[in-house]
Order: sequence, then C-alpha cells, then structure tokens
Amino acid sequence: MPETVPQPSRDRMIAAGVQLFQRKGYHGTGLIELLEVSKAPKGSFYHHFPGGKEQLAEAAMAQARDAVSARIDIAFADSASFADGARALVKAIGDWFERSDYTEGCPITSVLLETVPGSDRLAAASKAAFADWIARAESHAARLGNVRDPRTAATGLLIALEGAWIVARAQRSRRPFEIVADLVAGYAIDH
Amino acid sequence: MPETVPQPSRDRMIAAGVQLFQRKGYHGTGLIELLEVSKAPKGSFYHHFPGGKEQLAEAAMAQARDAVSARIDIAFADSASFADGARALVKAIGDWFERSDYTEGCPITSVLLETVPGSDRLAAASKAAFADWIARAESHAARLGNVRDPRTAATGLLIALEGAWIVARAQRSRRPFEIVADLVAGYAIDH
Repeated sequence: MPETVPQPSRDRMIAAGVQLFQRKGYHGTGLIELLEVSKAPKGSFYHHFPGGKEQLAEAAMAQARDAVSARIDIAFADSASFADGARALVKAIGDWFERSDYTEGCPITSVLLETVPGSDRLAAASKAAFADWIARAESHAARLGNVRDPRTAATGLLIALEGAWIVARAQRSRRPFEIVADLVAGYAIDH
Repeated sequence: MPETVPQPSRDRMIAAGVQLFQRKGYHGTGLIELLEVSKAPKGSFYHHFPGGKEQLAEAAMAQARDAVSARIDIAFADSASFADGARALVKAIGDWFERSDYTEGCPITSVLLETVPGSDRLAAASKAAFADWIARAESHAARLGNVRDPRTAATGLLIALEGAWIVARAQRSRRPFEIVADLVAGYAIDH
C-alpha cells in the first residue's frame, strides 16, 4: 500500500531531481544517478512516480516553482519600491548561483529547453511556473507603486533574471546579475 | 583518405546538430536522429567527428556563433543608434523564433545548460560564442556613440535576448522579445 512507503524517500527523489536537472538538464540526468543522489531504494522510484522521469520532473518543477516564488515574496517584502525588490531578488538568485560554484541553472529553464513543446506535461509545468513568478512580481509592483505597467515590469524582471543566469553560467561570474539589477530597476521606473 | 568523403555530408551533420540541439538539447538528441535528419551515411559520422557528439556540438556551436554574429552585424549596420540596432536584432531573433513555431531555442544555451562545466570543450565553445557576440555589439555601441558604457550595454543586450528566448518558449509567444527591445533600448541610453 502506498502509505507504507516513507514519505521522505519521495521528497529526496524530488530534491535530487531539482539539483541534477539544474546541473545536467533533463535527458542528461539518469535514473541511476537520481537514485544514488537521493539514496532512495530503486524499487520505490516507480512506486512514487509511475509516470517515470517525466512525472518526477513535473514534481521537481512544482517544488522549484514554489521555492522561487518564496524568494520573490521575501525579496519584495521589505522593499520600498519595485526597483529595490527587483535588485534584492536578483542578488538572492546571484548568491544562490555563486554558492553552487556557478553550476546550477534555473530549475525550470534546464528542463524546459529540452522538453518543450515535446512533452505536454512539462510544457504546462514550465508555463505555470513562469506565470506564477510573473504574477507575484506583478502584484508586488502594483502594491509598491511607481511602476507604469506592473505586468510588463514583472515580465521584464523574469526575462532579465533568466538571461543573467545563462550568461553567468558561460562566464562563471556573477557580473551578469549585477548588470540586470540596474537594467530592471531603470526599466521599471520608466515604464 | 579524408579528402574522398564529400564535404556536404559533414555540413549536413552540423546543420542537423544545430537544429536538433535547439529543439531537444544536447543529451536529448540521439545519433540515429542526427543521421536521419542530415541524411548522412552512418559510417561517415565518426569519420568526420572522431570525438563523437561532443565534437559535433563544438562544430555546431561555432557555426551558430558565426550565424548570430552575422545577424548582429546586419542589425547594427543600418542603425542610427545602439538602441535602434538592439531593437533590430531583437526583432530578427524574435522572427527566427516565431518561424520555428516557437520550438527553437538559442543554439548555444541549449547545449550550455547540460554540459557546462562538465565538458571543458563545450564550456569553452559557449564562453567563446557569448564573448564574440558581446564584443561585436560592444564595437557597434562604441561606433554609434550615445552609450555610456558600451561593454555593459552589449552584455545587457545579450542577457535580455537570452532571457526573452526562454520566456517566449514557455509562453509560445513573441511578446517577450518586444519587452526586451524596450528594456535594452532604455538601458543603453541611460548607462
């Protein structure tokens, strides 16, 4: 019965999925490595994820979506303006990336580029994650004021953040995050 | 002898690599599919690419790098300002993406996110491509004037373009390209 399998093994598999997809992408992450990193018994994988790696990726993307959403809320919580919140968010993601020794990309993008539009399930998960992040940033922009078009400012923030994450990976540097902090702050005020 | 194998088969393999990596990433692209799309004889693959798929990816990234570099030069050639050139470039990439029915990502990013830093060879190819694009945009910024910091403006343009390419893929829309055209144009003038 499903209830007899301890929940932590499923959680560990999802956490391993998030990390490995960020480093090596979707197809580059094999089942054996997922089990090794999650220290989960092999037999439990298809018990938890009868839909295989695609289902695990869907769960990993949902968890990553929520983790980044929480970071967005934290970044804007103590900020006096959208520009300040955007800067705080970009700094937080840059710190995260630097702590990973420049190896971990955005958990959504890393899966998205290999599976969209091929997988309907992961296409929906990607779209939902970005939509959630944009909606959150938009609500903070609307609340804080001083932004002409909250939705466009929020989308611009996501675009800049995703772009910085990629260029920073190639350059092994956090400088791109510093550039986008300025880019987005200026844009938000003007638009 | 290498000379007896017709050159077009190698070219077709590289072209197939560029296209398939853009759609499905590095690990998601299999050798069988590469041969099918390139209509190349199986035996010739390791003849042309004794280093296997990694070597093909390196050649594909070099070709993609040059193709985008040419687009950068074209976009800025007839522009009166960096902002105009940035807008023209963003539009050209957005057109390309739309023509692919929203399925083809940046040819460098699509490989980079799965292989950097794991592959020294592809890490070097990624870094070189971005460095080349930034250097070209920077030289146009310096030539056209009206940009305070040409290098930062050029890096900001690349960041915004890469980010738009990703968000547009998730949203199946070219709207993100329109947002970055404004984002970059405003930034370039102010910085």
